[in-house]
Amino acid sequence: MKAVVTGGAGFVGSNLVRRLVALGHAVTVLDGMIEGSGANPANLADVESGLSDCLQVDLADAVGWHEAVAGADSIFHLAAQTGHEASMREPIDDLKANAVATLRLLAAAREVAPEAALVFTSTRQVYGRPQTLPVSEVHPLAPPDINAVHKMAAEEYLRISGRVDGRASVVLRLTNTYGPGMRVRDARQSFVGYWVRLALEGQDIPVYGDGEQVRDLTYVDDVVDALIDALPIAATSSPRFNLGGDVASLLAIAQEIIAAAGAGSYCLVPFPRERQRIDIGSFRADDRAFRTASGWAPRVSWKEGIRRTVEYYRSRRKAYW
Amino acid sequence: MKAVVTGGAGFVGSNLVRRLVALGHAVTVLDGMIEGSGANPANLADVESGLSDCLQVDLADAVGWHEAVAGADSIFHLAAQTGHEASMREPIDDLKANAVATLRLLAAAREVAPEAALVFTSTRQVYGRPQTLPVSEVHPLAPPDINAVHKMAAEEYLRISGRVDGRASVVLRLTNTYGPGMRVRDARQSFVGYWVRLALEGQDIPVYGDGEQVRDLTYVDDVVDALIDALPIAATSSPRFNLGGDVASLLAIAQEIIAAAGAGSYCLVPFPRERQRIDIGSFRADDRAFRTASGWAPRVSWKEGIRRTVEYYRSRRKAYW
Repeated sequence: MKAVVTGGAGFVGSNLVRRLVALGHAVTVLDGMIEGSGANPANLADVESGLSDCLQVDLADAVGWHEAVAGADSIFHLAAQTGHEASMREPIDDLKANAVATLRLLAAAREVAPEAALVFTSTRQVYGRPQTLPVSEVHPLAPPDINAVHKMAAEEYLRISGRVDGRASVVLRLTNTYGPGMRVRDARQSFVGYWVRLALEGQDIPVYGDGEQVRDLTYVDDVVDALIDALPIAATSSPRFNLGGDVASLLAIAQEIIAAAGAGSYCLVPFPRERQRIDIGSFRADDRAFRTASGWAPRVSWKEGIRRTVEYYRSRRKAYW
Repeated sequence: MKAVVTGGAGFVGSNLVRRLVALGHAVTVLDGMIEGSGANPANLADVESGLSDCLQVDLADAVGWHEAVAGADSIFHLAAQTGHEASMREPIDDLKANAVATLRLLAAAREVAPEAALVFTSTRQVYGRPQTLPVSEVHPLAPPDINAVHKMAAEEYLRISGRVDGRASVVLRLTNTYGPGMRVRDARQSFVGYWVRLALEGQDIPVYGDGEQVRDLTYVDDVVDALIDALPIAATSSPRFNLGGDVASLLAIAQEIIAAAGAGSYCLVPFPRERQRIDIGSFRADDRAFRTASGWAPRVSWKEGIRRTVEYYRSRRKAYW
């Protein structure tokens, strides 16, 4: 199989690339290597020689797409601006990374990869503040930030492409993915990453509010499983599925990270205004539809995942700090 | 009142501008004067001297917005790429005109017009092919084309702006607006305009399919009433309302235009593929929510509106053909 992975130097992307290469597929990576994104050359260091191609292109440009996707059997479109607060400060950048890039991809694929199935990573953020928990796919959409609006728009592009071009695709709405390869410099990509770094540095983890908000944590290996398991259920109707995982409170997550690191501490701090205005409260995904359709199930408990993650970063400060 | 009208040289915009000036308001027009849009200098010829300002700016640029909206009490955001088929051919242009321009407007208004109420013209197209008729605001959204995706995104920007910036706004989802000032060169803006021109030229009007699809027709003076009546119900929740009008079949509309023109004819032709793939079938809006909230009601029947429209264009070929 010839597979294309956009955002392949990023967190989830690089883990997917490693798996696809191990499975014997021909893999082309596209990545904008944008400062502030999850892209990190260290993520691909051990697998780069096994790639068919690795292209650094501005994904909002028209240039580079045709070469990259020509003849692809499958396209995993993971490249994105993922920061919710960042999208509020720089909405046009978010628009380019999420909406424009997806339009470019679809336009190129229409010409040079008409048969490729597409897997797209969206976000649970499209639901906004949940009306009920757990949140299934019939929950109304109410994007609370610009990033969620653009992810929603990209989902619609795929559905239109299915009807108009016959493009088979599938959308996975991710919750909180964490694990080796995530950005730990700051909380732009994942608060878990930032907290792991703070703990390993022996610093205070700031937990917002009372820490009782719950999040779905999905270990990156389980997300990689899901992306691959999603491929056979791609369809022109562009089905959309939640992807959940293990539920834990922010406070419990902080405590587990501190225990695994054997260092650090936490403190409860009031919500910063920039965060509070887009915060969605507790979230728990109902992902039974995806489990039924694909056969997928997560394999790594959140405590085991945190342990593996902390161990990974313990010896890799130079590449990720 | 200091009012800003984006797309003020366009069809609905120029009719709104004329009314606002007549009501004694200070009106600033912003228009990109984009080739292929509804903008036409002839639309403002009789009112230009009464404007506070008339700025030609590329609305997808950051430049010009601050100057235009500074100190505004109200902003009517009508500038748009409105062509559904055009949005499928040139999705990035549609994105710029509809999504980027709205982000630019909101960013500028946040700084220099924090109190201005905003009225936004969206489209019934966001609903896609109706599941039931008439379509009320609780009908699920299923944008069938790129233009509708971007209108939906812009609606979401307004809701976020309401929550985050305290911006009061209101969304009117228009159906088929027609009347003096509309583009008649082609069917990009309104099939009615194109048909009026064909009839006046003594040509055949091509009616797609069996002509039994129905459309809501709203005469432009009634839409102008609605835009002004909407201003007081702008709120930070950014309420969204359908705006309907008189219902008629495509065939009846063609026949009425031909009768009013005293010229032309029609023929039934199969749907072109480019149109069929995004066609939504019959549409009829339930606009009771807006009538109740605002007190608005249309005043011009569709037959009277067609008559006035044909008379307007009969003597204005030079400016509009």
